[in-house]
Amino acid sequence: MNTTAFGLRRSFGAGFDDIIARLPEALASEGFGVLTEIDIARTLQAKLGVQFRRYRIFGACNPPLAHEALQTDLAIGVMLPCNVVVYEADDGHAEVIAVDPTQTIAAAGVPQLAALAQTVKEKLGRASSRLG
Amino acid sequence: MNTTAFGLRRSFGAGFDDIIARLPEALASEGFGVLTEIDIARTLQAKLGVQFRRYRIFGACNPPLAHEALQTDLAIGVMLPCNVVVYEADDGHAEVIAVDPTQTIAAAGVPQLAALAQTVKEKLGRASSRLG
Repeated sequence: MNTTAFGLRRSFGAGFDDIIARLPEALASEGFGVLTEIDIARTLQAKLGVQFRRYRIFGACNPPLAHEALQTDLAIGVMLPCNVVVYEADDGHAEVIAVDPTQTIAAAGVPQLAALAQTVKEKLGRASSRLG
Repeated sequence: MNTTAFGLRRSFGAGFDDIIARLPEALASEGFGVLTEIDIARTLQAKLGVQFRRYRIFGACNPPLAHEALQTDLAIGVMLPCNVVVYEADDGHAEVIAVDPTQTIAAAGVPQLAALAQTVKEKLGRASSRLG
């Protein structure tokens, strides 16, 4: 798990379909449900008529932690849910990038949210590790 | 439109249902489609059995700009789509908070993405203004 400019990246030898299939269970092991799923390739094909690599954005939510965050600051919803991106690299292996909540939820410098963001970051990291 | 710790906030005299009904057209006027919608109150009720104010998170996407951002940096998907939150304030009026892309998409300091984030920010601001 490497911290990049955007989120926490992990490369897998496994292919896109395999990772997609196992992602919900990996996230569930840390208390995240998948609330949304965007198929970027299909969206860009439909809206712009362009081809794009296989690329999905999953919106993951840990309800108790989301509830705590929303009670701390109602505006935090603009940083929810926690996105987990899966895309197919040029050689066919899967890349997984989870949003880094310390870059988003913690951005406003609210101490209570900073601690929560760190907890969520660690949970996303462990969930991602289960895919390897 | 005020910049807050999280996103761009706007208060409306109109109620929650009215704003929710008019949001898709307001976003469409600036080229955004709504890809996802999360009903936070329903989710928290279902998962935790708790009551929460009426609160929705809409995932808005401007396909040409999303495509440009993804071509610049594949990892940018963790910051997409652009969230627009609508919730009911204690007195019943609607609050709208759009994510500030200069806090998310531009966070990595890539010059090309910084300019794009500013464009998206202005578009979200104009879309929000149409609700007033």
